[in-house]
Amino acid sequence: MFETQVTAARRGTATEAMKQVAAFERREVEFIRERVADGRIVIPANIRHTSLRPVGIGRELRTKINANIGNSMLSSCAGAERNKLRTALRYGADTVMDLSTGGDIPLIRKSLIADSTAPLGTVPIYELVARYHAEGISEEHLLEVISEQAEQGVDYMTIHAGLLRDFVPVALKRRLGIVSRGGALLAAWMTENLRENPFYTAFDRILEICLRYDVTLSLGDGLRPGCLSDAGDRAQYAELEVLGELAARCRAAGVQVMIEGPGHVPADKIEEQMRRERELCNDAPFYILGPLVTDCAPGYDHLTGAMGGLLGAMYGAAMLCYVTPKEHLGLPNAEDVRRGIVAFKIAAHAADVATGKPGAMEPDNAISDARAAFDWEKQFDCAIDPERARAYREEAIREAAAPPQHGSEFCTMCGPDFCSVRLSRKLKEAGKDEKKC
Amino acid sequence: MFETQVTAARRGTATEAMKQVAAFERREVEFIRERVADGRIVIPANIRHTSLRPVGIGRELRTKINANIGNSMLSSCAGAERNKLRTALRYGADTVMDLSTGGDIPLIRKSLIADSTAPLGTVPIYELVARYHAEGISEEHLLEVISEQAEQGVDYMTIHAGLLRDFVPVALKRRLGIVSRGGALLAAWMTENLRENPFYTAFDRILEICLRYDVTLSLGDGLRPGCLSDAGDRAQYAELEVLGELAARCRAAGVQVMIEGPGHVPADKIEEQMRRERELCNDAPFYILGPLVTDCAPGYDHLTGAMGGLLGAMYGAAMLCYVTPKEHLGLPNAEDVRRGIVAFKIAAHAADVATGKPGAMEPDNAISDARAAFDWEKQFDCAIDPERARAYREEAIREAAAPPQHGSEFCTMCGPDFCSVRLSRKLKEAGKDEKKC
Repeated sequence: MFETQVTAARRGTATEAMKQVAAFERREVEFIRERVADGRIVIPANIRHTSLRPVGIGRELRTKINANIGNSMLSSCAGAERNKLRTALRYGADTVMDLSTGGDIPLIRKSLIADSTAPLGTVPIYELVARYHAEGISEEHLLEVISEQAEQGVDYMTIHAGLLRDFVPVALKRRLGIVSRGGALLAAWMTENLRENPFYTAFDRILEICLRYDVTLSLGDGLRPGCLSDAGDRAQYAELEVLGELAARCRAAGVQVMIEGPGHVPADKIEEQMRRERELCNDAPFYILGPLVTDCAPGYDHLTGAMGGLLGAMYGAAMLCYVTPKEHLGLPNAEDVRRGIVAFKIAAHAADVATGKPGAMEPDNAISDARAAFDWEKQFDCAIDPERARAYREEAIREAAAPPQHGSEFCTMCGPDFCSVRLSRKLKEAGKDEKKC
Repeated sequence: MFETQVTAARRGTATEAMKQVAAFERREVEFIRERVADGRIVIPANIRHTSLRPVGIGRELRTKINANIGNSMLSSCAGAERNKLRTALRYGADTVMDLSTGGDIPLIRKSLIADSTAPLGTVPIYELVARYHAEGISEEHLLEVISEQAEQGVDYMTIHAGLLRDFVPVALKRRLGIVSRGGALLAAWMTENLRENPFYTAFDRILEICLRYDVTLSLGDGLRPGCLSDAGDRAQYAELEVLGELAARCRAAGVQVMIEGPGHVPADKIEEQMRRERELCNDAPFYILGPLVTDCAPGYDHLTGAMGGLLGAMYGAAMLCYVTPKEHLGLPNAEDVRRGIVAFKIAAHAADVATGKPGAMEPDNAISDARAAFDWEKQFDCAIDPERARAYREEAIREAAAPPQHGSEFCTMCGPDFCSVRLSRKLKEAGKDEKKC
C-alpha cells in the first residue's frame, strides 16, 4: 500500500518527490517535508502519473506557472492539444491544465498525461457537463467523473466547492456577474434545482477519491471578479471564507490543497487579496489567474495578467495561471501559448528576484556579464526565450542599411560610435593599463 | 515678449496650455497653475513648436508615456522615422524623443517637429558627437547645438549634467559599467581630458537658452543601472543628488525641469527609488526608463519594462519612457514601436487606476459593460489597441472547426454551452422575470 505525500511527511519521512523538489529549490529536504506536512507546500503527484517530474508549489518556493490548454466544442483536436502541450513544456510551464470541453475528452487527457512530465490538472465539471449536459449535474455523476480522472492519473483537480447557493444572488448583482465557467454552470444548476452546490455536499466523498490516488485539490474561485470594479466584493470574499473552511477539511483528511484566486484586480488591491487568502486559508498555496490589472487591453491580456501576476507573487502567490493574448477573444493557438508562458515566466522570475528566492538572480547576472563581454551566444543561452531574442537581433541586422558583421561588438541600436558598453569597456581597460604603469 | 509657463504661473496667470492640460486631466486650472509654479508639474512647450498640443507631466497627473524614435548611424532614414512618429502618435505616445545619431539630423528633426502634435524631446549630445565626434565635445559646441535645437522648436532636452568626473571610477567598478550612451560619452571625454562635465560647467548658459524658447530640461541619469545587480548603488545615488541640486537651480532660474531615472531595478527596490527621487529632487516630475525588472528576457523588454513602469508609476513616477522588444538587440522598427507603446500605455493606465486618477477606470467599466452585453464592436472601441483585438478574434474564428457567426454571443474559447457570460445573463434575466411575477 502506498503512502500519500502528506502521510509520509507527517510520519517524518521524506519521499523521493520531496527530495527532488528540495534539490530544484535549493532548500533542505526537511524544509520541504515540514511544509508538505502542514500544507504550506503541495506536490501534486498522482500515483498513476508515471512520467511525472514532481513540482513543489508554495509561497516560499520559486513561483510556478501553469498553462491552460484543452479544446473547446468549436475548436481543436487531440493532435493540436498535444502540440500545445509540447509548446507549454518547452517554454517552461511548471504545470499544465487540460480544460477540454469537447470531443473525446478522456482520450485527449490520456495522451496528455502520458506525454506530460509536468503535473497535469483538470476541471472535472467540464467533462461532467460535456457528458451529461448541465442538467445532468449530480453528486453521483461528479463522483464518477472525478474517480475516472483520478484513476487515469490526473495530478490536481479544480472543483468549485465554495460557491454556495446563498452567494448566487449577490454575485449576479455585479457588473459582470459570474465569469468562472464552472461557477456559472453551478450557479445555474443551483438556481434551477433549488439545491446546494453538489461539490460542497459531496466534499467528503471527493476527499476519499483524492486520497486513493494522492490527487491534490485546487479549490476553484467560482466567484472570482471578471472586471476591476467587481474585485474584492462581498461575493468574492464570502466564497474565499468557505474555501478556507474546505482547506481545513482537506488538511484534516490528509489531502493536499491549493486555493484559486482572481481574476481582474486593480494593481493597488492585489496585496490585500494575497494577505486575505493567507489568513483565511492558513497559508495554503495560492494559485492565481493573472490577475489582470486592467480590463481594457484585449489582445494583450498575457501582459496585463503578467503584471498582476508579478505583484501577486511578490505578495505571496505560489503559482500563476497564465493568460494568453487571446483571452476574452477566442481559443489560443500554439503561438498564443508561447506568448502567454513567456510573459508569465518573466513575471514569476521577476517576483523570485524581488522576494530573494535562492539563486534567483543568477541568470540575470550571467546575461549581464555576457552583455559586458559582447558574448551574443551566451546572452541567447541565458534568455528566457532564446529563439525570439536571436530572431529579433537577426531581423534588426537584416533591416540595417549598413549591417554589422555577425558577432560584432555592437548592435544596430547605437552602432559602434555610440555603444555605451564598448565605451565602458575601453574606459575600464584604460584604468587597468594605468594601474600597471 | 512672451512669458514662459513658469513666469505666467508664478504671476498667477493660467496660460492656454495650462487650461488645456486641466481639461484633459479633469482638474481645476488652479491645481495645474500652482504646480507649474512650484515645479511639480511641467508642460514642455517650446514657443516655436506651433503644432503642439500641450501635455502636463507630474506625479499627480495621468501617467504619461514617451516613445523614443530616431535612427542610428547604421539604420533608418527620415521617411522611416516619420513613419515611426505616426505609429507612436497613433498608439498614444504622450511625448516623443528623436534620438537620431546619423544622417542629416537637423532635417529629420525639422520634419518630426512639424508633424508632431506631442512634445518632442532630444538628447543634444548625440547631434554634438555626430557633428564634432567624441573628441569635439566642448562647452561652445554643446551650446551651439542646444541653441540650434531650441530655435528649431524642441520642447525638452535630456542633458547628462549630473555625472561628475569623480563618479566615473565608482561607476566603472560596476558589473555593467555605464550603459547610458550620453553618460558613457561624457565619462570617456572627462577621463581623456581630465576635466569636469561640460554640461555641468555650462549649466547656467544652458538655462539661458532654455528660457529664451521655454525649453524644459530633462536631467539625464548617465549612471543609471544597466542590470539588476547595479541598481541603487553609490554611483547612481551620487548622481541623483547632483540632479537634485541642478533641479533647484532650474527652478530658481524659472526653467521647467524633469528628472530621468532607471533603468534596471529589481521589483522590490522600485518603491525606494521613487521615494528617493522625490526627496532629493523636491518632487520634480520623475521620467523613468522602464525600469526593467529582470535582465534575462531579451525580446520581451517591452514587457519587463512595462512591469517596472507600472510599479514606478504606482509609487510616483510621472512619465514612463517605453522600451521596445528590440531593446538590447537592435534598432526598433514600426511594429516594435507599436508593441512598446501599447505595453507602456497598459502600464500607465493600470497605474492610473491604482492611484485613482480622475476618470481612470471609465474605459475599464465601459469595456466590461460591453462584455456583459456581447457588444464586440464596443469592446474593440474601448480597447487600448482595437485593431489587434479585432484581428485576434478574427484569427480565432478562422481557426475554429465550427466557426461561430459574426456577432455571436460567445467566442471560440468556451463555445455557447460553456460561456459564463451567457449563463450569467440568463440567470439575471430569470431573476428579473421572477420579480415581475
